[in-house]
Amino acid sequence: MTARLIEALNTTDQLADIFSDQSVLRAMLQFEVSLAKAEARVGVIPNSAAKAIVSATQPAAFDMAKLVRSAFRAGTPAVPLVKALTEAVHRKDPDAAGFVHWGATSQDVGDTALVLLLKQAQSILANDLALIESSLQRLSDQHKSTVMLGRTLLQAAPPITFGLKVAGWLSAIRRSRLKLDAAFGEALILQFGGASGTLASLGKDGISVSKALAQELDLICPAAPWHAQRDRLAILMCACGVLTGSLGKMARDVSLMMQNEVAEVSEPGGNGRGGSSTMPHKRNPIACALTLSAATRVPHLVASFLSAMPQEHERGVGSWHSEWPTIADVIQSTGVAAASMAEVASGLAVDASRMRANIEAISGLIFAEKAMMLLAPKIGRDKAHELLESAAKKAVAEGKRLVEALVQMPEAIRHLDSATLAKLEVPEEYLGSAEAFRRAQLESRASPPAQQRRLKRSK
Amino acid sequence: MTARLIEALNTTDQLADIFSDQSVLRAMLQFEVSLAKAEARVGVIPNSAAKAIVSATQPAAFDMAKLVRSAFRAGTPAVPLVKALTEAVHRKDPDAAGFVHWGATSQDVGDTALVLLLKQAQSILANDLALIESSLQRLSDQHKSTVMLGRTLLQAAPPITFGLKVAGWLSAIRRSRLKLDAAFGEALILQFGGASGTLASLGKDGISVSKALAQELDLICPAAPWHAQRDRLAILMCACGVLTGSLGKMARDVSLMMQNEVAEVSEPGGNGRGGSSTMPHKRNPIACALTLSAATRVPHLVASFLSAMPQEHERGVGSWHSEWPTIADVIQSTGVAAASMAEVASGLAVDASRMRANIEAISGLIFAEKAMMLLAPKIGRDKAHELLESAAKKAVAEGKRLVEALVQMPEAIRHLDSATLAKLEVPEEYLGSAEAFRRAQLESRASPPAQQRRLKRSK
Amino acid sequence: MTARLIEALNTTDQLADIFSDQSVLRAMLQFEVSLAKAEARVGVIPNSAAKAIVSATQPAAFDMAKLVRSAFRAGTPAVPLVKALTEAVHRKDPDAAGFVHWGATSQDVGDTALVLLLKQAQSILANDLALIESSLQRLSDQHKSTVMLGRTLLQAAPPITFGLKVAGWLSAIRRSRLKLDAAFGEALILQFGGASGTLASLGKDGISVSKALAQELDLICPAAPWHAQRDRLAILMCACGVLTGSLGKMARDVSLMMQNEVAEVSEPGGNGRGGSSTMPHKRNPIACALTLSAATRVPHLVASFLSAMPQEHERGVGSWHSEWPTIADVIQSTGVAAASMAEVASGLAVDASRMRANIEAISGLIFAEKAMMLLAPKIGRDKAHELLESAAKKAVAEGKRLVEALVQMPEAIRHLDSATLAKLEVPEEYLGSAEAFRRAQLESRASPPAQQRRLKRSK
Amino acid sequence: MTARLIEALNTTDQLADIFSDQSVLRAMLQFEVSLAKAEARVGVIPNSAAKAIVSATQPAAFDMAKLVRSAFRAGTPAVPLVKALTEAVHRKDPDAAGFVHWGATSQDVGDTALVLLLKQAQSILANDLALIESSLQRLSDQHKSTVMLGRTLLQAAPPITFGLKVAGWLSAIRRSRLKLDAAFGEALILQFGGASGTLASLGKDGISVSKALAQELDLICPAAPWHAQRDRLAILMCACGVLTGSLGKMARDVSLMMQNEVAEVSEPGGNGRGGSSTMPHKRNPIACALTLSAATRVPHLVASFLSAMPQEHERGVGSWHSEWPTIADVIQSTGVAAASMAEVASGLAVDASRMRANIEAISGLIFAEKAMMLLAPKIGRDKAHELLESAAKKAVAEGKRLVEALVQMPEAIRHLDSATLAKLEVPEEYLGSAEAFRRAQLESRASPPAQQRRLKRSK
Repeated sequence: MTARLIEALNTTDQLADIFSDQSVLRAMLQFEVSLAKAEARVGVIPNSAAKAIVSATQPAAFDMAKLVRSAFRAGTPAVPLVKALTEAVHRKDPDAAGFVHWGATSQDVGDTALVLLLKQAQSILANDLALIESSLQRLSDQHKSTVMLGRTLLQAAPPITFGLKVAGWLSAIRRSRLKLDAAFGEALILQFGGASGTLASLGKDGISVSKALAQELDLICPAAPWHAQRDRLAILMCACGVLTGSLGKMARDVSLMMQNEVAEVSEPGGNGRGGSSTMPHKRNPIACALTLSAATRVPHLVASFLSAMPQEHERGVGSWHSEWPTIADVIQSTGVAAASMAEVASGLAVDASRMRANIEAISGLIFAEKAMMLLAPKIGRDKAHELLESAAKKAVAEGKRLVEALVQMPEAIRHLDSATLAKLEVPEEYLGSAEAFRRAQLESRASPPAQQRRLKRSK
Repeated sequence: MTARLIEALNTTDQLADIFSDQSVLRAMLQFEVSLAKAEARVGVIPNSAAKAIVSATQPAAFDMAKLVRSAFRAGTPAVPLVKALTEAVHRKDPDAAGFVHWGATSQDVGDTALVLLLKQAQSILANDLALIESSLQRLSDQHKSTVMLGRTLLQAAPPITFGLKVAGWLSAIRRSRLKLDAAFGEALILQFGGASGTLASLGKDGISVSKALAQELDLICPAAPWHAQRDRLAILMCACGVLTGSLGKMARDVSLMMQNEVAEVSEPGGNGRGGSSTMPHKRNPIACALTLSAATRVPHLVASFLSAMPQEHERGVGSWHSEWPTIADVIQSTGVAAASMAEVASGLAVDASRMRANIEAISGLIFAEKAMMLLAPKIGRDKAHELLESAAKKAVAEGKRLVEALVQMPEAIRHLDSATLAKLEVPEEYLGSAEAFRRAQLESRASPPAQQRRLKRSK
Repeated sequence: MTARLIEALNTTDQLADIFSDQSVLRAMLQFEVSLAKAEARVGVIPNSAAKAIVSATQPAAFDMAKLVRSAFRAGTPAVPLVKALTEAVHRKDPDAAGFVHWGATSQDVGDTALVLLLKQAQSILANDLALIESSLQRLSDQHKSTVMLGRTLLQAAPPITFGLKVAGWLSAIRRSRLKLDAAFGEALILQFGGASGTLASLGKDGISVSKALAQELDLICPAAPWHAQRDRLAILMCACGVLTGSLGKMARDVSLMMQNEVAEVSEPGGNGRGGSSTMPHKRNPIACALTLSAATRVPHLVASFLSAMPQEHERGVGSWHSEWPTIADVIQSTGVAAASMAEVASGLAVDASRMRANIEAISGLIFAEKAMMLLAPKIGRDKAHELLESAAKKAVAEGKRLVEALVQMPEAIRHLDSATLAKLEVPEEYLGSAEAFRRAQLESRASPPAQQRRLKRSK
Repeated sequence: MTARLIEALNTTDQLADIFSDQSVLRAMLQFEVSLAKAEARVGVIPNSAAKAIVSATQPAAFDMAKLVRSAFRAGTPAVPLVKALTEAVHRKDPDAAGFVHWGATSQDVGDTALVLLLKQAQSILANDLALIESSLQRLSDQHKSTVMLGRTLLQAAPPITFGLKVAGWLSAIRRSRLKLDAAFGEALILQFGGASGTLASLGKDGISVSKALAQELDLICPAAPWHAQRDRLAILMCACGVLTGSLGKMARDVSLMMQNEVAEVSEPGGNGRGGSSTMPHKRNPIACALTLSAATRVPHLVASFLSAMPQEHERGVGSWHSEWPTIADVIQSTGVAAASMAEVASGLAVDASRMRANIEAISGLIFAEKAMMLLAPKIGRDKAHELLESAAKKAVAEGKRLVEALVQMPEAIRHLDSATLAKLEVPEEYLGSAEAFRRAQLESRASPPAQQRRLKRSK
């Protein structure tokens, strides 16, 4: 029951709608209505009862504040909801009231309602992820020749291309998204087991009603109820966790490149984004901040779900109760990260000349490795390493470029001709397989083939 | 923006009110109003401006939905709030509008508003904890002579008293509560630093305004702003985590003792608590479930806060943004655990005869240790251990009590006289220091003395 | 550097061997040797250099204590290892020394070595999981007709079969294992990118060397290096987390059923397992304890890995460094859980008569739902619910069985004939779809088909 | 049983020694020896038995590999240790063997041994923290006038002093250290309760033996055993978590300031620290990396401990078993962070001129707030905000400084005289209360006084 102001940064409008009270209520009622229809179809309850239940089910008629209060007392929203629904049906048709929730248990309503909400969330996430992927693909192609500093442990390293960096973001996000698709595919599943998970009160009709109900709700009908086996939801939470981590990695990079001292890229502004109440000149990396916030919180929420997995017997005490807010939080936070990075991916401003200038500013030191590798076969790697360390120190101390320092070292010019030295600090001449790696990442759609390849090979 | 139905189990009504939109808005406005007053008092802004700001500040006048949307775009609720407030003041007094939020930054409003909410939450938590402590004190006294099974790794062990068990709950909860008190004591602190934490725009008046503002809000005035140093809030989160763990331990025990096969205690029912939608006979341990749910979630929320501590420079990117919902969740979940265990502590039904019956049902096996310790000085511990293992196996195999098995073993009766054997399985005869430990825990108010004692001794 | 005594409960012998110093060293050297071979094959370094490197690589020759100390100073074990290896090669062939580690960076060695260890761990985990699955399959079949209490929120519920309970464990563990297989399939992948992930120092030969190296090591060759994109390892960690959760659920159930008051099953003892230093009669659920310990720790370790995902640029600072012990811990803890539950699954002692006795002891109360469902169509669900609540209370108060209480209530006997009442409390008559659910879970091998079915249907 | 190579980055040598097998074994034996002495002193066991136990206790005589294997089977190292010790005593004096471990349970040995290790760790942590505090105090004083950019959300903000930044690190670390001191003060406590926590087998001598034993071990004697109440250790874990977070914040800042593009500070190198295997020019922020690694892992380890708090009855199943490696990891990781930051604090190289140059490079934009605050009282805040936004845009677009842009805007020069404009971009003129905040943080020793002040005031 946290305020929207507190949660404002942790959900998008669309996902807030999905996890709103009205939406939750609708999903729970959808279960009850579909259950009545399915049971009438199978012949377990009278058709007239099903009709009465359907017609009595008006979300607007429920007293939300009362439901919330009673849910707290009952330990589940299902108990007061079924009570209220039964009363509503009773007012229309007393005979039908007895058939409300027939054969189901509280967890059946709660879990299935949750799954119905997840199904709605899936397409919203999919939209943002599709935008990210297509935008990054384009961005990577545009900047396949844009050289920039590699940076390891936040220190300058040999050059890469911005196109390669973007391809790295893309391929991780795509792999994570494929996992999310698969996880949704297994998690969008009916829960229906009755008191102990045997559908005992339906006698021999349990399976038939289950199948009819799954069809009504367009959900998978599982091999058995899963009241205390939460692995499918856990896998979905994990997929969100990994995806948010991959989005967070992109946000981390963008926020670092937006530092004034680096200034290589800039989040799109506009529409109220990124201003400061005190500093009129600022463009804050708000989309990155929201994504990094999600990447901070989601791992712990995932762990919260995993911690609750060893549930007692046929329904856990406390463990199961802990799940609902965790799931809602994970999905909404993942959604914020996806929406934010979609905005960034599709609107990022890139300053290629500043990227090159930042390479220049390092005075060639990042090419020390290159020089060392050129010298190593001639004078041995150890000596080459020592020589380059001296050259690097000399360059830093005397404010020269690396190549200028090398030219003054006899041992260096003895083995490196002037053509080699002239090209030593040209970024384009030291990109190795950057473009091949970039293209391969853009092309590789999925991981299963890679795996199959390996399995074949290992035969 | 999670639905109240989803959060229903994770907050009490009172705490939901504190973390409601209206309450958050009021707290933010309270900061702005108090700031204007304090600045007028110090002479930094005109009195007339302060008056205009005070009179223009009507929480009801703000468009909450718009604030929420803008907060998402701006990355903080403070930016749109200040904008809306400035417009409201402008409508009353255009000259005063320029003095809204004078010298403050978004984080000053956000953090201080949060602290004001925490202050309200403190007394609510304190009430429930006081009820728990007094109830458990009484319960422990009532049952100081009620014997029951000790249970280790969920296996029967030598007897304890229920009074001792309750004293263990009490002393852990009391220690945790003292930590919570101390943490609140340090966390209820003003945040006021301006853009970079130097109050630069207030020139030489920064400290004076800070002090006046802290006084207005009845908060501690810190040595310096703490925009990126979140340790005080972290300690508060941790204190909630430890307290919820201690409450969770009590809930774990109660839920296990409520198992039908154990049946030693029962949560109070009544007021809609613990019914089942399908099983009319059931009394579910709902208060325990809610507490265990909190104990499942809170550790991860605490870790989420700790993970966000290494915040960048003068204000973090993403890390800071992740905190607000975490804090609201932790406080409300801790509050649910406290309220639930207050209900349990003050209304627990105890079945002392069943406790004794459960000892009886073990057929004396838990006194094997006692018999072994009686024999060990005479025949050596190893032989005693072996002898008792045989006796225990014999008893189990033949459906006898341990003493009956022992009487048939010559080696045993040679060293144990009949008076000893007669008392062997009397629980009251094997309680050791149970009562002394119980009383000591009830008496020990706090831990500092213990610590002082040790420090003295080690000199 | 934690003591084996401290870690004793958190690894099996086999997994301890895999993550031992000698094993880590061997894996790192295997990378360096394979790199030299691959580069010689492609023609990047002289054949003679490769031979010298291969022959100089004797794990026993390295000073482990010195490596550990230097690793701490260097922030990675790779730097001192390469230095030591270079020295060793130099002693054999000074010319070859320059070609050690040619083109690779520290992270290439570290990550690939880790992957090689994971590959060894995979088969060990697979063995234990196969034993669990086959044992549970058999156990479920044996007990397809063994009735026992359902238990929800730790309270008695309508009956299930033990075969169904076991099938629930099995299907969750099998689903989790399939995820683990898939995750290993993608994570067993070469890391080779050089300083910035472009293999710049290898010029145009980067891809050829990569492929040759992957072949040497029998690992997948990725589309590109993944120095800062850790999603494949993250998915593997998550799969371990979900699997350990599913194993933990089984352990939770077994430990609860082993309570003296329940006494329905018993872990196998033998080989030093489960004794007590003070209580000769005890059989402790040690395998369950070790599994629940793993299920307590692993979620947090998984989250630790996810938290580290937003790594800076081409190599993270601190985030990457945090991964190695986390991964080793997760794999070993998962392994302990798998080995422990394999022991339990294959050796569990089951007391079917005690299971039935525990149903008896509830005095028919768990059949109140059944009676209510029988009455509801006749007198309405609400009235039926009320009537059964009265009957249940009456039964409890007067120490009767439910059916005895019902027989004394005119409203009940008016609608329930004596044949119905006679069968009311027969567990076998109220199992619903238990056996169908059991069989379906044993049959369902995997989840993809379920998913495909749904995708087809939704077209 | 993770390799030292894997753990190399997660412990210091000293802490590795404390948590080594020999050290753990010594601590366990110290418990057993002290117990025998205490019991002889109180008269519970014969003096001769105590002497035999003392003289038979030779750590070197124990077969570590066998202990580890048996510990795994028994679920605790205590069971095989007691067995091995008993055998050793038996070889010396068969009569004494029966008095080994007299009245104690496995958890008594395990917990107390752990506490003895914690006591050793305390002083090591204290040394490093003292060095950090004194170094930062000096560093802050040295740089009280060194101006640098403030940075919020990684964007340039009005200036601060480096002295203020350092004071912020110091005050957070000091507050966290005080919490650690307090937590150690309460956690260094004897565990001694026997099988069920009543010391039943000692009859009336339980308390006397407890006191004597606590004295032997120089530990606090608690009001009662705490087998299943783990709050004191939880608080210690939390204190480590908060401290590591505060150290991580310092490491985050230093690593960001070490970026080549920022280049304001540099970690001390030397002694093998920070080199790269491929990039001879690099100085990597290794101490920061190790600290950030700790700050990544420790929150999750803390949560792992908190998650395990709701332990079952008198001894938990799995929960308790999960604690030991968690505690060892937390202490060692905290120690690495403390040692690393001690190295950084005492050896940090600071480039004050680069700090000033980085301010210059922003072209005065960070003084827009200042200009706005100067204009606001004259033209209203809104207009001032707009005017400065225009000026800032103009400056950026035309490559001018802010003041140059302002001079060309009539509205600006109408209200700002030339003296004001001349000082507008002088950092020293816009530091507000920076120095006062710096001094106040250096002076404030502890938090209790602050709290007392507030309590007084609120009367």
